[in-house]
Amino acid sequence: MSVLIRGVRLDGKNVDIYCEDDRITEIGSVSVEADHVIDGSDKAAIPGLVNTHTHAAMTLFRSHGNDLPLMTWLSEKIWPIEAHLNADDIYWGTRLACLEMIKTGTTAFNDMYYHVGATARAVDDSGIRGVISAVFFNMLDTGDIDAAIKGMTDQVNEIRSVGCDRAVPALGPHAPYTVSDEALGAIGDLSEKEDLLVHFHLAETEKEINDYKERTGEYLVPRMEEIGLLSPRMIAAHSVWVSPEDLDIMARNGVTASHCPISNMKLSVGRALPYPEMMARGIPVTLGTDGCASNNDLDMFETMKFAALLQKHATNDPTALPAHEALLMATRAGAAALSIDTGEIVVGRKADIVLIDLKRPEMVPGHDLVSNIVYSANGSCVNTTICDGQVLMMDRIVEGEAEVLQKAAEAANDLFCRE
Amino acid sequence: MSVLIRGVRLDGKNVDIYCEDDRITEIGSVSVEADHVIDGSDKAAIPGLVNTHTHAAMTLFRSHGNDLPLMTWLSEKIWPIEAHLNADDIYWGTRLACLEMIKTGTTAFNDMYYHVGATARAVDDSGIRGVISAVFFNMLDTGDIDAAIKGMTDQVNEIRSVGCDRAVPALGPHAPYTVSDEALGAIGDLSEKEDLLVHFHLAETEKEINDYKERTGEYLVPRMEEIGLLSPRMIAAHSVWVSPEDLDIMARNGVTASHCPISNMKLSVGRALPYPEMMARGIPVTLGTDGCASNNDLDMFETMKFAALLQKHATNDPTALPAHEALLMATRAGAAALSIDTGEIVVGRKADIVLIDLKRPEMVPGHDLVSNIVYSANGSCVNTTICDGQVLMMDRIVEGEAEVLQKAAEAANDLFCRE
Repeated sequence: MSVLIRGVRLDGKNVDIYCEDDRITEIGSVSVEADHVIDGSDKAAIPGLVNTHTHAAMTLFRSHGNDLPLMTWLSEKIWPIEAHLNADDIYWGTRLACLEMIKTGTTAFNDMYYHVGATARAVDDSGIRGVISAVFFNMLDTGDIDAAIKGMTDQVNEIRSVGCDRAVPALGPHAPYTVSDEALGAIGDLSEKEDLLVHFHLAETEKEINDYKERTGEYLVPRMEEIGLLSPRMIAAHSVWVSPEDLDIMARNGVTASHCPISNMKLSVGRALPYPEMMARGIPVTLGTDGCASNNDLDMFETMKFAALLQKHATNDPTALPAHEALLMATRAGAAALSIDTGEIVVGRKADIVLIDLKRPEMVPGHDLVSNIVYSANGSCVNTTICDGQVLMMDRIVEGEAEVLQKAAEAANDLFCRE
Repeated sequence: MSVLIRGVRLDGKNVDIYCEDDRITEIGSVSVEADHVIDGSDKAAIPGLVNTHTHAAMTLFRSHGNDLPLMTWLSEKIWPIEAHLNADDIYWGTRLACLEMIKTGTTAFNDMYYHVGATARAVDDSGIRGVISAVFFNMLDTGDIDAAIKGMTDQVNEIRSVGCDRAVPALGPHAPYTVSDEALGAIGDLSEKEDLLVHFHLAETEKEINDYKERTGEYLVPRMEEIGLLSPRMIAAHSVWVSPEDLDIMARNGVTASHCPISNMKLSVGRALPYPEMMARGIPVTLGTDGCASNNDLDMFETMKFAALLQKHATNDPTALPAHEALLMATRAGAAALSIDTGEIVVGRKADIVLIDLKRPEMVPGHDLVSNIVYSANGSCVNTTICDGQVLMMDRIVEGEAEVLQKAAEAANDLFCRE
């Protein structure tokens, strides 16, 4: 399979981009033939966007229970229904998420949820990339750690057994308030031994930090370092309530932050990510949507705008988090965090490419493309989505879209009746 | 001209909506014939959205000069180019804005900018509604007030001479820091005498409040009341830096706030609108995008989401500004502020109706339509836009779109070369 994009705007120039199999093999003036030729005129190419924190199948909960206090929402709206989730729900919920991601230019996501085999199959069938971690809770039970680790290893193997290169297994200990330190330490060891990414909720709320201190007598982030959970393999979702000392710890352990501005604002976590302090320490900051229950969409263009504007608001500085940094967070930094060879359109990289339609009102005039992408565009400005060298959407048409919408709606309705 | 929308979802039911000329004349099961029949299946009807603060032709500045300190941005990026604006620029810039509004479900806007005749012609040709005010500055000069008032009256007459019912003249004194109190008082009188709305920037920044106090020895909002500027005809853009006393004054004078959360965050005004305090006093709160130079789009769906999430963030309360309130702000409250008979889909109202495509990934599943509209949708979820009984967009196609995009891009390029 080869794809040739003719005459597309890339970094201020008009070029041809040639992809062979899963790689970008030539950029410039390309004269070879291709299986699939795309007219790139009036389009701009950017790397496929990378969403570093979501719970994909929570699309099934979209618009269910909003504008509620956190614990009311979780205990009355989410958990009672989550208890009834089956693998089929997860498959169609993830298919719906992947469809929305393809339609809004995201080609890779970092997931944490139930029934990882179903998630891996949905990733396989959708054509995008997913780093998939089984969510692990033990509700602070210090019981059989070996069994817990075996359970996680089984799930890693379940993902691998799907046999899809784009579905990458990872470890998903939920959060410091739902997983015992003993288990977190063992998960850190497993991550090192098997070279698996760890997807973790860290320092999302002030209560979490205070409760940890009260329960254990220790400070949360220093303790996570002590037990060996922190490493360059760690993607720490939220990381909002971190002190300067915590930031030093994140930096020296190479931890990546997954910033989810929309979720943070919607759930009123009460603070903005300390982005300038993270930049000052060289902590990699990436962007995530969080799940559709707390966002309620998967549009990374919207997340870029929220991230940039929340920083300007929080720091009272309109120069904070400029557009080009937001785009890098959603592309290069995200790809690096997930250890996938995408995030830049250069020869040799995997062919994850998104074409933006420049003939939309939001994109006119074109004084500054990156500003238009971050501040004016939304995911619907994406015309074409290519992942791993395969054209997943062209002229906004995704094969099988109607079936996914119908099956996911049916799964959601069925799940909510099951309650 | 008659329009019949068959089997569309409205307030939880499937109904037919019949519009004759510019009014909604029947809702329910309608058996009459119509000139234009629209299949409403898999669509939901909401009132056309109302944007109560913008500078429409600033689309020409979209993506020019971002991430800069306010005064650098204005003095280096905006004002030098604004000095060269001509009526033709304004016409095409406003046409581009109207196109973007039609495509994102906005059917009425409150404008303040230059060359109001050109704006009125653009509104006439686009088919949507504009309350159009000539921006008035005198840079605090206390000179010839009569001449200033005559200039404003001439501009009102220029708008009227276009002969378009949808283009409504208003008065646009820019702000307390650019217009002398003497002129503001005279504008207040003119507003009362001619029953014209007043579109004003009020209390956008802390500096504005402090500078006013320093310059005049008086508090800004109380002084605006004293000179007779405040009334139910006043739409006060921003209204962020208002004290409890200021809020009491706004309430007793019937002033409407136009909240522009995106602009406020992008320009780092340093505070969120005191929405709960406004609600407690019954101050009407509406939503605006502000101009494309400081947003940078005109998508009111995005503004609804930002408004809701900024309040949750600022008040640390996830129940603040729930979805249904955001939708009311963007519809009923906006229409009331602009004194236009729209904002609700009921028999007798003007036919400003937007149909949302429910077969988009963001809108599935449909547990709660209003939550989906505010938290998941963006303007691209709009399938059909009807204003004043005319179908302006159907299946996302707007007549003449390509010409508007081209002419507006040309006008922007030409303007920037003229500098």
